[in-house]
Amino acid sequence: MPFEFDTATQLSPTATPGTFDGAIHPGWDINGNANGGYLMALAARAMRDESGRPDPISVTAHYLAPGPAGPVTVQAATVKTGRQLVTMTGSMRQGGRELLRLLGSFGDVAAMSGGYQHTTLVAPDLPPREQCIQHSSARATVTVALADRLHIWFRPEQVPFAPGPKSNIAVIEGWAELADGRPFDMLSLLLVADGFPPPVFHLDMPAGWVPTIELTVHLRGVPAPGPVRCRFHSEIVQNGFLQEDGVVWDSNGQLVAQSRQLALLPRS
Amino acid sequence: MPFEFDTATQLSPTATPGTFDGAIHPGWDINGNANGGYLMALAARAMRDESGRPDPISVTAHYLAPGPAGPVTVQAATVKTGRQLVTMTGSMRQGGRELLRLLGSFGDVAAMSGGYQHTTLVAPDLPPREQCIQHSSARATVTVALADRLHIWFRPEQVPFAPGPKSNIAVIEGWAELADGRPFDMLSLLLVADGFPPPVFHLDMPAGWVPTIELTVHLRGVPAPGPVRCRFHSEIVQNGFLQEDGVVWDSNGQLVAQSRQLALLPRS
Repeated sequence: MPFEFDTATQLSPTATPGTFDGAIHPGWDINGNANGGYLMALAARAMRDESGRPDPISVTAHYLAPGPAGPVTVQAATVKTGRQLVTMTGSMRQGGRELLRLLGSFGDVAAMSGGYQHTTLVAPDLPPREQCIQHSSARATVTVALADRLHIWFRPEQVPFAPGPKSNIAVIEGWAELADGRPFDMLSLLLVADGFPPPVFHLDMPAGWVPTIELTVHLRGVPAPGPVRCRFHSEIVQNGFLQEDGVVWDSNGQLVAQSRQLALLPRS
Repeated sequence: MPFEFDTATQLSPTATPGTFDGAIHPGWDINGNANGGYLMALAARAMRDESGRPDPISVTAHYLAPGPAGPVTVQAATVKTGRQLVTMTGSMRQGGRELLRLLGSFGDVAAMSGGYQHTTLVAPDLPPREQCIQHSSARATVTVALADRLHIWFRPEQVPFAPGPKSNIAVIEGWAELADGRPFDMLSLLLVADGFPPPVFHLDMPAGWVPTIELTVHLRGVPAPGPVRCRFHSEIVQNGFLQEDGVVWDSNGQLVAQSRQLALLPRS
């Protein structure tokens, strides 16, 4: 029985080189629109396979239209094959409409591991999962189907849409694990990098759909098995746009992914 | 007399739509290789002009080869024209070689200004410029010609390559201003976003050329006239790669640009 994530990102090569058939699967969405990290993972899988390298290293997507469930075509093309990295473009289309355009570098993180290390980012000291609050797919106004595929446990004081006054602190930390226990790899970390609700939901502003303009994820290490610890925060909401940064640590405390996105403010 | 930055990013349309002739000008380089922010600005100018919108909003470049001075061709193509944003691809070539590939969104920041604002990032409390140390183009082992085009004044305790033991704190803060007094706009902020020496030079590791793999810059506001305040720092050096974040504030204290890059560790 294949894992859900692998089925949901499955691709079939077509007769056209670099072009793959796949589908946006139901269940990875928020109110019917597929999660941006899932869409990135689906497209990046085609880019990775076409690159001949095992790992996404840096992937940027610009989001052009929401992605409802249904068949898609993913095109991947090589820009440059270097010694350490292969630079790729990608594009996902549904019917006549382009949903996302991507640019990324692919390589072999295991082959580059070791060397000089220095980090000042520390994994959040989260309470154990049983003391955290699990993300639920059922909400008053929105159905977060994704929450049944990617399990998330929030730090108790940072649960979005909790009753009471808003904290006005745009931070959400928590645990994440794929629902069927599939261990994370560098591809599925792309899902995690956009898998949490927007931390701006804690701000004293109208909540609503936060359309991502651009998402960049840096993959920094091969994740160890087990749940990951995540921290998402927004530092600057200004002139109609907001920035959101994410950091993901594996069960060994290794920083495995860093993400940043620019999104449009929710329209109330 | 045009300003240096405008001359150095000048482009002429060719007979092929979306294709422009230009040149990597000498003087914007480190040891003969053009600065990555300057190259991004040159390419983004073509993308911006082709987009029909006044401002870069989010620009990502993947760097494929170093750029010595000489003629280049820049291609810009529209991916999608939306109501608020136009998504563009870009590519810069020199001779038969592609130097960078880009993806970006362009819009009109002034038209989107206002609305809900929230920021937790604070501009560094820098000493006045006359108490800071000006970046010099002449170094023992490297010629930073860029330092004569983009003037930088470092916080005194953060001057790279200062004598004495290294601080092991990967932070560099300082003032920046174009040498000929040209006021900053959103295009020239792309130069600033990669204009400082790498803060990892303060770490206890071999210094050397730090090749950028990928640089993403978010432009967040129209800069007021006057020098900008900048903060660059690296939080994670791991598995042969380093991340570097930059933030730029204008003379009114408005955050105007945020950048992140993934680069390769210097090879000693």
